[in-house]
Amino acid sequence: MSDLSRFSINQMTVKQLSLPELVDACDGLGVRNVGLWREPVRSHGVEATAKLVRDAGLTVTTLCRGGFLTAIDPKERARALADNRRAVEEAATLGTDTLVLVSGGLPAGSKDLHGARERIADALAELGPYAEQHGVKLAIEPLHPMFASDRCVVSTLTQALDLAERFPAHQVGVTVDTYHIWWDDRAPEQIARAGAGGRIHTFQLADWITPLPEGVLNGRGQIGDGSVDMREWQGYVEAAGYTGAIEVELFNEELWARDGRELLAETARRFVEHTR
Amino acid sequence: MSDLSRFSINQMTVKQLSLPELVDACDGLGVRNVGLWREPVRSHGVEATAKLVRDAGLTVTTLCRGGFLTAIDPKERARALADNRRAVEEAATLGTDTLVLVSGGLPAGSKDLHGARERIADALAELGPYAEQHGVKLAIEPLHPMFASDRCVVSTLTQALDLAERFPAHQVGVTVDTYHIWWDDRAPEQIARAGAGGRIHTFQLADWITPLPEGVLNGRGQIGDGSVDMREWQGYVEAAGYTGAIEVELFNEELWARDGRELLAETARRFVEHTR
Repeated sequence: MSDLSRFSINQMTVKQLSLPELVDACDGLGVRNVGLWREPVRSHGVEATAKLVRDAGLTVTTLCRGGFLTAIDPKERARALADNRRAVEEAATLGTDTLVLVSGGLPAGSKDLHGARERIADALAELGPYAEQHGVKLAIEPLHPMFASDRCVVSTLTQALDLAERFPAHQVGVTVDTYHIWWDDRAPEQIARAGAGGRIHTFQLADWITPLPEGVLNGRGQIGDGSVDMREWQGYVEAAGYTGAIEVELFNEELWARDGRELLAETARRFVEHTR
Repeated sequence: MSDLSRFSINQMTVKQLSLPELVDACDGLGVRNVGLWREPVRSHGVEATAKLVRDAGLTVTTLCRGGFLTAIDPKERARALADNRRAVEEAATLGTDTLVLVSGGLPAGSKDLHGARERIADALAELGPYAEQHGVKLAIEPLHPMFASDRCVVSTLTQALDLAERFPAHQVGVTVDTYHIWWDDRAPEQIARAGAGGRIHTFQLADWITPLPEGVLNGRGQIGDGSVDMREWQGYVEAAGYTGAIEVELFNEELWARDGRELLAETARRFVEHTR
């Protein structure tokens, strides 16, 4: 059993709530931390969101997400880099030091995973110093291998660290998300590697449930409903020195169909029940 | 470009064909090898199937599948072991030396991947010698990590080899299937490891396409339709010394809705086009 001091609610988990509703619901439940997403933040206004959360005394633990850095076409690459620079600026405005990166899948027609991973490294060489200037760290998120072709060619913590370690830790680290790595018996040692290098920039929880829905994106389970031992993974990141917030980030159509405040309350209860 | 001499059609790819139809279609196309599945073989009769394929001069490259060895309950475990001994006997009757194993997922309510993998090892210690007595090799198939909870806790070639190498290579090796490992940058070195140990017991092809269907089981792509460079993977197994048949095993509702003979002909053409 834990309390809510380290709990952060990722906005996507309760995307049915507007930003003012989310902030109000957090206040009512004693939730002190939120992870935000760019699209709803931009809809509300970046400055306005920053003021909203600041006035409520909330800490913004991450901004999701930059990335999509695998394009080959020079114009597409330039657009992606410009968009990521904007994401860095938005993170700084919101007062968070962590921008989560979903690196991008294979370009249409390509079968070259290695080349795509190298283009991510090229992009990080440009974005890392820019992020540093803004006091923001980039957190490469390995996504489950089922997303390798269409969303993220970085599929394991090992791969994410192989990329991140080409850069200073205060520029580039990793996102540790139980949903994406729970199956990987090498992940615990990679968490230790990440911790030793000061590269665990955020820790996120979601549970693994089946059957997966069509398209597999929106099938993440509520904490405690699936196959992942949350305390075990919390133990790994803490043994590696991580003391930061723990975000719960669920993408799930059934959860989104429910009342958002009720879902937030349930998620907070599950967090207390399944972490330590 | 290759010819069809090493092509093997896995029966599941064209499951709309009865066994006599499959054998007849192979004869018409010059296909010399088939991978069989236990359920349709048992429906037709194991001895009758053995005679059918022998009379047609077909080689049975594998029998799919044994496995599901992760149960905790002693009665369930005993049932699984007995069923796997029958599978070994069926493989021997059919004249194939390779039984593919899908190891099994997490028992209901369990979150213990490590324990499940150890129970597979315990089962292999019993089944390996039994298989050897029948001239059959067990081929552990790592399944894509998206199947880790409900179908197979062995998710990578590394894990499969960590299990297989506890036993003699003529008892236990691995199945290399592009669909399950294409995303894994460590797989090429693991194929080399498997080859050096004489443990590549079969090589299977399927392509990776998205979006994945609900349940994700039946979304495998026809060769050439997706993200996998078949020649690249063929190169890895051949550099590792593999000279055996190359099975095409697709699970795909759209393909199954088509005429089976036409699909088999297309699959043979795609094989020739995308292998060397």
